[in-house]
Amino acid sequence: KDILEDKTVLKAKFEKLLKFERLESLTPHAWVVVRIDGRAFHKLSKQHNFEKPNDLRAIQLMNIAAATVMHWMPDIVISYGESDEYSFVFDRYGSRYPRSTSALVAQCVSLFTGAYVKNWRMCFGEDCRLKTLPVFDGRSIEYPTNTSLRDYLSWRQADCHINNLYNTAFWGLINLRGYSNVEADKKLSGTFSRDKRALLLEMGIEYDEEPTIHRKGSVIYRKRVKARTQNKLKAASAIVREARKDGRSA
Amino acid sequence: KDILEDKTVLKAKFEKLLKFERLESLTPHAWVVVRIDGRAFHKLSKQHNFEKPNDLRAIQLMNIAAATVMHWMPDIVISYGESDEYSFVFDRYGSRYPRSTSALVAQCVSLFTGAYVKNWRMCFGEDCRLKTLPVFDGRSIEYPTNTSLRDYLSWRQADCHINNLYNTAFWGLINLRGYSNVEADKKLSGTFSRDKRALLLEMGIEYDEEPTIHRKGSVIYRKRVKARTQNKLKAASAIVREARKDGRSA
Amino acid sequence: KDILEDKTVLKAKFEKLLKFERLESLTPHAWVVVRIDGRAFHKLSKQHNFEKPNDLRAIQLMNIAAATVMHWMPDIVISYGESDEYSFVFDRYGSRYPRSTSALVAQCVSLFTGAYVKNWRMCFGEDCRLKTLPVFDGRSIEYPTNTSLRDYLSWRQADCHINNLYNTAFWGLINLRGYSNVEADKKLSGTFSRDKRALLLEMGIEYDEEPTIHRKGSVIYRKRVKARTQNKLKAASAIVREARKDGRSA
Amino acid sequence: KDILEDKTVLKAKFEKLLKFERLESLTPHAWVVVRIDGRAFHKLSKQHNFEKPNDLRAIQLMNIAAATVMHWMPDIVISYGESDEYSFVFDRYGSRYPRSTSALVAQCVSLFTGAYVKNWRMCFGEDCRLKTLPVFDGRSIEYPTNTSLRDYLSWRQADCHINNLYNTAFWGLINLRGYSNVEADKKLSGTFSRDKRALLLEMGIEYDEEPTIHRKGSVIYRKRVKARTQNKLKAASAIVREARKDGRSA
Repeated sequence: KDILEDKTVLKAKFEKLLKFERLESLTPHAWVVVRIDGRAFHKLSKQHNFEKPNDLRAIQLMNIAAATVMHWMPDIVISYGESDEYSFVFDRYGSRYPRSTSALVAQCVSLFTGAYVKNWRMCFGEDCRLKTLPVFDGRSIEYPTNTSLRDYLSWRQADCHINNLYNTAFWGLINLRGYSNVEADKKLSGTFSRDKRALLLEMGIEYDEEPTIHRKGSVIYRKRVKARTQNKLKAASAIVREARKDGRSA
Repeated sequence: KDILEDKTVLKAKFEKLLKFERLESLTPHAWVVVRIDGRAFHKLSKQHNFEKPNDLRAIQLMNIAAATVMHWMPDIVISYGESDEYSFVFDRYGSRYPRSTSALVAQCVSLFTGAYVKNWRMCFGEDCRLKTLPVFDGRSIEYPTNTSLRDYLSWRQADCHINNLYNTAFWGLINLRGYSNVEADKKLSGTFSRDKRALLLEMGIEYDEEPTIHRKGSVIYRKRVKARTQNKLKAASAIVREARKDGRSA
Repeated sequence: KDILEDKTVLKAKFEKLLKFERLESLTPHAWVVVRIDGRAFHKLSKQHNFEKPNDLRAIQLMNIAAATVMHWMPDIVISYGESDEYSFVFDRYGSRYPRSTSALVAQCVSLFTGAYVKNWRMCFGEDCRLKTLPVFDGRSIEYPTNTSLRDYLSWRQADCHINNLYNTAFWGLINLRGYSNVEADKKLSGTFSRDKRALLLEMGIEYDEEPTIHRKGSVIYRKRVKARTQNKLKAASAIVREARKDGRSA
Repeated sequence: KDILEDKTVLKAKFEKLLKFERLESLTPHAWVVVRIDGRAFHKLSKQHNFEKPNDLRAIQLMNIAAATVMHWMPDIVISYGESDEYSFVFDRYGSRYPRSTSALVAQCVSLFTGAYVKNWRMCFGEDCRLKTLPVFDGRSIEYPTNTSLRDYLSWRQADCHINNLYNTAFWGLINLRGYSNVEADKKLSGTFSRDKRALLLEMGIEYDEEPTIHRKGSVIYRKRVKARTQNKLKAASAIVREARKDGRSA
């Protein structure tokens, strides 16, 4: 009963409980990457009839969510997104983000998910209500050298390329040639890049002319802007906000 | 260019990058608690005019978000919430949740934030639009003994009690006696529990008759339900869903 | 140059360097096991002509080293050794050992290795000089439940049994039947326990009558002793020390 | 009883126990420093009458132990020692050392302690027997940048300088002026470097002419040597070994 009487007594009594909390701290001066990726997004994309192989509304929503994370986390210098994943790179000498691994991952995931749910309607419209909760996984990785960070980003972009080439061919076979999923998968199994490109050409698709955002993924970085330009931008976005309000109240 | 041609080559080349990913695994057979807490919720509560000392809509929204986490995470046996924080206790012998610390924290925070944003309108109504993003921090803690887990839950509940007693007195002085924030804080500084209770009585408030949910916090646990009851519940919630749809389309 | 002038300035300037030191702390109230095992002891045992399958001098030296660790670390409640490994179990509620993983492992390994080198001559005699350095690896493991700790100890003892049964049969074939290493290994491959026991019987060895220390490994635990007994023991060991000194000076 | 019959059954049954072993892996491509430091060396130095402020035999023993560690660990590029501590720097791109934190620390500490005990007699002579066990603590630290590694080494060397200046003055007062420990400490309290240097001059000691090994600590690095030189060195050390043997048998 005594511990209910005074915050000081409470602290004294339960201070030992704090020792159970393991602190996983990030190494100073290392590049820190937080990578977020959707869980079971295959199911979510089916439930909401995402266009295949790429749904521009879904990509834009990912980009808006990522830009929101960058807005709240000033130490992120660059972000890279593809499919249902996004990587955030924190300034190796930055000091404005939590040094505990789980706090950093938690805050990024919380911001990303919140922005994703909040902006769903804007990207998918009134008719496509969000039927299920998107769930994102997260992890943090440390890169001690510039080379290893560059390798990481190349890796994710190569992953994007290979998946997108496959998906473009796969859905081409289904949408243009009437293949079933199983048939399309069988047709592509064991093929190399040049085979898939040739197959796409047969269907009238020149792969290198597909939209860059699908072939390369999305990159968000900060741009230094003069104060005067910044004020103009603020004014413009205020007008947009007003227009939106009018639209809603109409 | 070669790494862009084949997934196998890509894997081979970048396998070494996986070694940068540190795996923080949870000890098997320990109680795992994931605690989520709001960041800068003081500001969020001001922006949306939360009632003081307690806003039942906000508490209900927290409880809905927590129940959503429990729905997706079948190994959570009990959850405890107070103020802007929630603790989730995972079955020490459970095996249906990720064993990596950051994945577990990320998924809980993602579900909680997503549910919080998605259900905001339902709790706060059309007129109180969500103006900013709620951000939640998260961490995981391991308790090897039943005693230490019980101590943890006592600690959080004692924290709830002490904060709520203070807040009830603080906002009583402001709302009923016209004190300023600074004056109320000064009046309460250095007082013990019995002093705050006496002060509340003078203002006509018998503290022990305040709603339990404010004094004790919220507990969510699972209840074993017979299959027949479960079917009735499902039918009932289907009716509720239909009614909602009608309401929207009307 | 200034940092060389004053310890305070030095601390201020290099305090940031302390943030690079990651602290891996042990969970309170969990059973902690530190397991030490020899590296490349196969080579060390050959270099010093250890008797096969078991060299009692080597086992005694391991036991002396383990007892030394227990003498310096009062929170170790029990230790178990077999072959070139030793496990130390720390009291789950103990508070007299470092809570940092690497400090705990380092101190155990340091004490064990130091005692092993220091007492080599006593166990192996003047004629068998220590020709190379013994190197021990170390790790710490946490067990949250009594059951998991018991399972761990059973596991190590089962490991001892299986290895020793194999080794006894293997060296029996070599020493008593003149097999080569390759032949003995081939003879035993695919055999079950009962086959090895039968084979040993053929060579005149009843396995269950082999010395317990070889079949079961070594266990060291503390025994509560009355103060009077303790004084007698101290007196006795002082006499032993004197006798040794005389031996040396003679 | 069945688990005692077959290694495969044993593995199957206890595989789950391996999940309790937490792996703390080192980040690839980061500089890794393992720092070892003596525990309670104050007491050990008293027991063996170390010369004050510096005992060259003790320094040489530390250096021999460190050279032994470097001999076994080919990825260590440089080591720095002062007082009762030694820092080992591992090649950031090296791959010949364990990537688990505790294994790396354990092996370094094991080698260092073993070499310290084994070579004690050589450094301190037959008359100064090792009366107690030296115990070394250990930890590993990661430095992602060259700058942070350089700062670390500067820090340790500045620490060496400041301690040695203090100790030289402290023991000067005691040995040359007959101060007690308490008086010497009081005399030096609050003094700056220039005060200590002035005080030393009064006692006839020009600090900058003290032996470099005391003022700067010890550095061990590898030197590339031609094969022919290496053979000559081997021959020489073989002769030394023979001579020693003769000495012993005489």
